[in-house]
Amino acid sequence: MFVLRQALRSSRVVLPATRPMSSSGPLVDLTVDGDGIAIMTLQRPPVNSLNLDLLKAINSSLDEVAKNKAKGMILTSASPTVFSAGLDIMEMYKPDLKRAEEFWSTLQEVWMKLFGSTFATAAAINGHAPAGGCLLAMSCEWRAMVSGKYTIGLNETALGIVAPTWFVDTMCNTIPVREAEFALTTGRLFTVDEALKVGLVDEVATDKADAIDKCKTFLKRFERIPSLARSLTKNRVRSGPVLRLQKNRQADIQEFLQFLQNPKVQQSLDMYIQMLKKKASK
Amino acid sequence: MFVLRQALRSSRVVLPATRPMSSSGPLVDLTVDGDGIAIMTLQRPPVNSLNLDLLKAINSSLDEVAKNKAKGMILTSASPTVFSAGLDIMEMYKPDLKRAEEFWSTLQEVWMKLFGSTFATAAAINGHAPAGGCLLAMSCEWRAMVSGKYTIGLNETALGIVAPTWFVDTMCNTIPVREAEFALTTGRLFTVDEALKVGLVDEVATDKADAIDKCKTFLKRFERIPSLARSLTKNRVRSGPVLRLQKNRQADIQEFLQFLQNPKVQQSLDMYIQMLKKKASK
Amino acid sequence: MFVLRQALRSSRVVLPATRPMSSSGPLVDLTVDGDGIAIMTLQRPPVNSLNLDLLKAINSSLDEVAKNKAKGMILTSASPTVFSAGLDIMEMYKPDLKRAEEFWSTLQEVWMKLFGSTFATAAAINGHAPAGGCLLAMSCEWRAMVSGKYTIGLNETALGIVAPTWFVDTMCNTIPVREAEFALTTGRLFTVDEALKVGLVDEVATDKADAIDKCKTFLKRFERIPSLARSLTKNRVRSGPVLRLQKNRQADIQEFLQFLQNPKVQQSLDMYIQMLKKKASK
Repeated sequence: MFVLRQALRSSRVVLPATRPMSSSGPLVDLTVDGDGIAIMTLQRPPVNSLNLDLLKAINSSLDEVAKNKAKGMILTSASPTVFSAGLDIMEMYKPDLKRAEEFWSTLQEVWMKLFGSTFATAAAINGHAPAGGCLLAMSCEWRAMVSGKYTIGLNETALGIVAPTWFVDTMCNTIPVREAEFALTTGRLFTVDEALKVGLVDEVATDKADAIDKCKTFLKRFERIPSLARSLTKNRVRSGPVLRLQKNRQADIQEFLQFLQNPKVQQSLDMYIQMLKKKASK
Repeated sequence: MFVLRQALRSSRVVLPATRPMSSSGPLVDLTVDGDGIAIMTLQRPPVNSLNLDLLKAINSSLDEVAKNKAKGMILTSASPTVFSAGLDIMEMYKPDLKRAEEFWSTLQEVWMKLFGSTFATAAAINGHAPAGGCLLAMSCEWRAMVSGKYTIGLNETALGIVAPTWFVDTMCNTIPVREAEFALTTGRLFTVDEALKVGLVDEVATDKADAIDKCKTFLKRFERIPSLARSLTKNRVRSGPVLRLQKNRQADIQEFLQFLQNPKVQQSLDMYIQMLKKKASK
Repeated sequence: MFVLRQALRSSRVVLPATRPMSSSGPLVDLTVDGDGIAIMTLQRPPVNSLNLDLLKAINSSLDEVAKNKAKGMILTSASPTVFSAGLDIMEMYKPDLKRAEEFWSTLQEVWMKLFGSTFATAAAINGHAPAGGCLLAMSCEWRAMVSGKYTIGLNETALGIVAPTWFVDTMCNTIPVREAEFALTTGRLFTVDEALKVGLVDEVATDKADAIDKCKTFLKRFERIPSLARSLTKNRVRSGPVLRLQKNRQADIQEFLQFLQNPKVQQSLDMYIQMLKKKASK
């Protein structure tokens, strides 16, 4: 058709090489490499459980990346074996409802910002990525997963809980609806090879450095693509599920709060936590 | 994330082994095996044509399965060569409009209950499954088809009629939209191998017993999945098409009734029935 | 189910063999072969750039095909190397806004008529098909592409512009959403082999004649399908995106006009045209 490349490109900001952005903190490390690609590393030991504090740190880091017009962002983990274990059970056990509301609302914001980000995104999945960990990875545009005995999937059902509609939308945006239904209802955790085959991950990497390299190679495909055209186009593909949640945020929060107040749910959480404590004390 | 398995599981009802449920009748046989899996067998000779009576029997059998909280349901046929030949032409030929309305309304209900069922479903397709037969099979969550010269597909177009929107939705939920459009517009009947390749069936079985075994293996994947979480998750994937028909039921019925009152349609039915009679008298 | 074939078929009109239809003109050649299949050949040298005149000619040719109840239509190009280069940049450079509005409105109409046509369609892609060229090809129901160093894709993003929502819908109707997002955001032009693999084209042909033959073979699959049933079924699969544009036509036009009035856009067009002139004068 025609080329607006030069005009649009002039509005892009070149970022200085490998410097920590201001939001770099204890829970999320955010750096920018020499090519202007931001690397966001989750580092809440031991398994990057997504509690309110970590979600807030991810949330402000996503703002930071957007503000600095990074050429793209790679999401990864500081843990050697876990990308993220998903939502932190302790945010749901005997909850203070006001905090629980903030917790869920922040999770919604993180998802809307990551799934619908103007900047290009890729996940370097260097370990297990169940439930919320899988959600974060699927919300990126591309995924490299480190080879090993790791698994990835929305296994909420296997744990007796129900993935919110926007989790389901995110999976249906990634793999065929038939595969998504089967994976969601069985709470399936995919091995790395299975994830590759179904399209849940795009490439398999030998280690974390290789996964990050592969993500960079993906993001460099946008080097000659004017960022405004790219981000508006991404928006046209992804705006549907984001708008659906925006319209439905309050109802989605209320559903979560009611779920937490179900005595059976709290009873199960209690049993599960006792079990974890016993394991830990051995 | 966390485990609500025990609490939620306690609400499940264990069914007695292999006993006939109360709705077991001449047109549908309904039994429950030792694992609590219901087996619904269509048995309206010779080809399980879906007339009002058979649809009513399926409808009440689906209620029965839901009421008894079966662990899952397998749909199959008593015929050695036909799963179901689809809608019964005699319900449409020179119709009593009140009965025709009940006929179509019952078909809608059967589909909404089967496609959107809370219990897990699988089809053991032991013979031909054209048109409405294919619809029933696709409305289940999983399909095993017996190897042989059988075919399956929504071949309405080849017969000069138009599949309702919810038939189309059901196929698009099963195979890619590109394949669905091609199959629907050409009225394609897939061989067993073609159906397997496109994802219209999930596995090929050697005979009916093997097909049922394979369905059981599928359903047993839900053994450790709390049923409430599973059914709500299934609902999140499938509620769209069901809600669309619920909103549109009356218009959908009127469209069918107008179709029946088209003189050309009745003329074609007449010609077709004469042809069948001649064949039968040879 | 049952056969309405004869009754419905009687309403089809048999067209005389290989005669030019009345709209055959300098920009579009329209003929009907002995089997009643219309062949629409774009012939605006050198590269079938879609300006207002060519779009109008396509528009009235589509009306002609519909009016004459052709059994199907094959879209191809008179150029030996280009199917269509997409929208004509000169319609956007220093535009008369009234003409620009007519230009975009005509493009919308062409797409709605082609994507939602009652007659069956196939594209014999005998050369490059970027941007608007790819849109025309994808709007058909089936595609054969001539083997060679040709490419096809919605590469708008690579050119700094944004594909309209209905371009995105058309691609998501053809290939999986995951592939579509990746192709759209990277402005990917697929080689013939890549296009075949992802399902963007259905078969590879040795030359234009072979591509047309393959399209005919596809269209002949509808020979025994009553055309009313076929077209209504196609409509049920495709009406969603068409209705979306119908509701949104004025906003879509305004978006285009505002885009044209952006000084940066005009500056880029100017640079691009100067570059083309330099190339041409060498």
